[in-house]
Amino acid sequence: MTDQIGQVAHFSIDEPLQLDGGEILAPYDIAYETYGEMNRDRSNVVLICHALTGDQFAAGTHPVSGKPGWWSRMIGPGKPIDTNRFFVICPNVIGSCLGSTGPASIDPGTGKPYGTAFPVITIKDMVNAQARLLDRLGIGDLFSVIGGSMGGMLVLQWASLYPERVFSAAPIATAARHSSQNIAFHEVGRQAIMADPEWCGGDYLSQDRRPGKGLAVARMAAHITYLSEEALQRKFGRNLQDRERITFGFDADFQVESYLRHQGMVFVDRFDANSYLYVTRAMDYFDLAGDAGGQLHKAFCGTHVRFCIVSFTSDWLFPTEESRQIVHALNACAANVSFVEIETDKGHDAFLLDEPEFFSAIAGFLSSAARERGLTAKETDQ
Amino acid sequence: MTDQIGQVAHFSIDEPLQLDGGEILAPYDIAYETYGEMNRDRSNVVLICHALTGDQFAAGTHPVSGKPGWWSRMIGPGKPIDTNRFFVICPNVIGSCLGSTGPASIDPGTGKPYGTAFPVITIKDMVNAQARLLDRLGIGDLFSVIGGSMGGMLVLQWASLYPERVFSAAPIATAARHSSQNIAFHEVGRQAIMADPEWCGGDYLSQDRRPGKGLAVARMAAHITYLSEEALQRKFGRNLQDRERITFGFDADFQVESYLRHQGMVFVDRFDANSYLYVTRAMDYFDLAGDAGGQLHKAFCGTHVRFCIVSFTSDWLFPTEESRQIVHALNACAANVSFVEIETDKGHDAFLLDEPEFFSAIAGFLSSAARERGLTAKETDQ
Repeated sequence: MTDQIGQVAHFSIDEPLQLDGGEILAPYDIAYETYGEMNRDRSNVVLICHALTGDQFAAGTHPVSGKPGWWSRMIGPGKPIDTNRFFVICPNVIGSCLGSTGPASIDPGTGKPYGTAFPVITIKDMVNAQARLLDRLGIGDLFSVIGGSMGGMLVLQWASLYPERVFSAAPIATAARHSSQNIAFHEVGRQAIMADPEWCGGDYLSQDRRPGKGLAVARMAAHITYLSEEALQRKFGRNLQDRERITFGFDADFQVESYLRHQGMVFVDRFDANSYLYVTRAMDYFDLAGDAGGQLHKAFCGTHVRFCIVSFTSDWLFPTEESRQIVHALNACAANVSFVEIETDKGHDAFLLDEPEFFSAIAGFLSSAARERGLTAKETDQ
Repeated sequence: MTDQIGQVAHFSIDEPLQLDGGEILAPYDIAYETYGEMNRDRSNVVLICHALTGDQFAAGTHPVSGKPGWWSRMIGPGKPIDTNRFFVICPNVIGSCLGSTGPASIDPGTGKPYGTAFPVITIKDMVNAQARLLDRLGIGDLFSVIGGSMGGMLVLQWASLYPERVFSAAPIATAARHSSQNIAFHEVGRQAIMADPEWCGGDYLSQDRRPGKGLAVARMAAHITYLSEEALQRKFGRNLQDRERITFGFDADFQVESYLRHQGMVFVDRFDANSYLYVTRAMDYFDLAGDAGGQLHKAFCGTHVRFCIVSFTSDWLFPTEESRQIVHALNACAANVSFVEIETDKGHDAFLLDEPEFFSAIAGFLSSAARERGLTAKETDQ
């Protein structure tokens, strides 16, 4: 897959990344994609932050799968994040496995894949690495930072850590801290992976083995949380899979079983099991208020960032209430914030799906922010 | 454990049980416990139906764990199901592993444990086996059938299949058909078990192995669904387990992780992995309306059973809406039905916990039904 990861920025042993946990990462790579063109004063840059198992191929066509990028409905010419106006950059987070350095990368100290010798990283580490990438590309500040789910955590972290580099921010279907229930679901996924003897204590790559069954179970469990009960009922209900009656056995009698098994199976081909451990752990550790002495509003003191918070009514993984807490904190520091709750039965996954009201909200937010920034269509047009 | 399973009714090869799936089960055992005393005309019998991983030890002290029975708050002298008035009987369902015949039992045809050669059973099969047990004990009809979760499915099946043998019925925190989301969670659990190489294609008992890791993961995933997000937040939040800060690793940093791991670990000691497959499958297959031509009310046509339907506000595994559908169906056939929704943040597990309003509802329902049946305190007192 390494031939097809697109652009990669390499940071040498002389450019170490100081990590939250005290360790140092060096050297490291950040794989990224860009769409559209940067304007003269570099004021039209939109940073896209992907979710847990996402990648840098947000728009256009994915080079490996041949399918449309995960946010190709959102990003492109004439789309809500309009590449005729904006220069869009989407990096793969560190800890992941689509070209950026993570546990599947070669540890220069041993010449073998890191495995669990890779340092545990946080959302802040991911953001710091992205800031280095922007430095490298000569990008000072961002017109906007946008992302959903874990991507939304990165957006919040960006706005809190580098407020002077962020003009506007849209955290979508996310939270300022990972909930107890969400930590619990992540822990189930991790235990499923670690229970697979093919995991080999994390050393499976060196031994040419793969904990595919454990990773598939982890994905299946997670996938249920991405949908709403209504969506599952509407899509599958109790419909049977290619049969007229139940078989009194353990085959996938029901469509929902067949669907989940498929989701588990295809995931194993595209994602590294250790990366799944590391990236879920980064989400578990995310707690902006905790980092700010327990009071969320202190994470945004005096901020000039314009915020657009988006939640979805049927999202039970990151329920609206969690977005509302962010809004309250931003209100408490008199920030410029708008809040949109989108009515949908599609659950957490809605941020990746065709939701016209959601697209309008993002398009409207960016247009208004562009006006405030003095980004005319003509200017961005060059 | 077989020394401590309490009373057992044995059904010989000459008393075969015809199963829903077309196969026959013979011989078979049903383990059961009783509390209180039967009155002269045998009109005070209350049948208790346990949940997925429950057992016959509903009241008193569990002979193996030494802990109180799973419904010891509900059943006993002076308690809502008052053993001073009622004769309570609680059988272990077939397919389970606490003394009744299931996949861990010896297949008389081979002399080895059944494993996956055990026939797939349904909720109806469980009820039919219980009816045989009552026949054996000389019990014609039941004053009441009561149970929560899967136990509630058995209650509904009892009322539908044997209306003439049921005077009153209380299906609690349950549904008339297993939802798509619930099938999905069960499938994750089954895949976790089957992914464990120690499962050995279901033949682990013969090979003296145990798929403990897979079963623990299954239990962990299920356990999350038994609690509400609020309860998890209240009990654990993001509290750390015996440490002051996160460790930047994959140990159980958070209390909720430690709790789930513990739940997984202790479950493995008390439950058979294949039974988990079989009993979850029976729940998946449950669909009273499907069996009645797609119209739930037809499952209860002309019924004289008095119903008390109970749901809990924060139960997202069997939400109130599912109970309401049962109520609507019962209303459609002019049945005698009362419906109680209990306000609680404890989630599905609430039916096993200390919920005074719930206890009052059950006590009130039984008192009123006893009056209608002419069961005076004196008469039951003998």
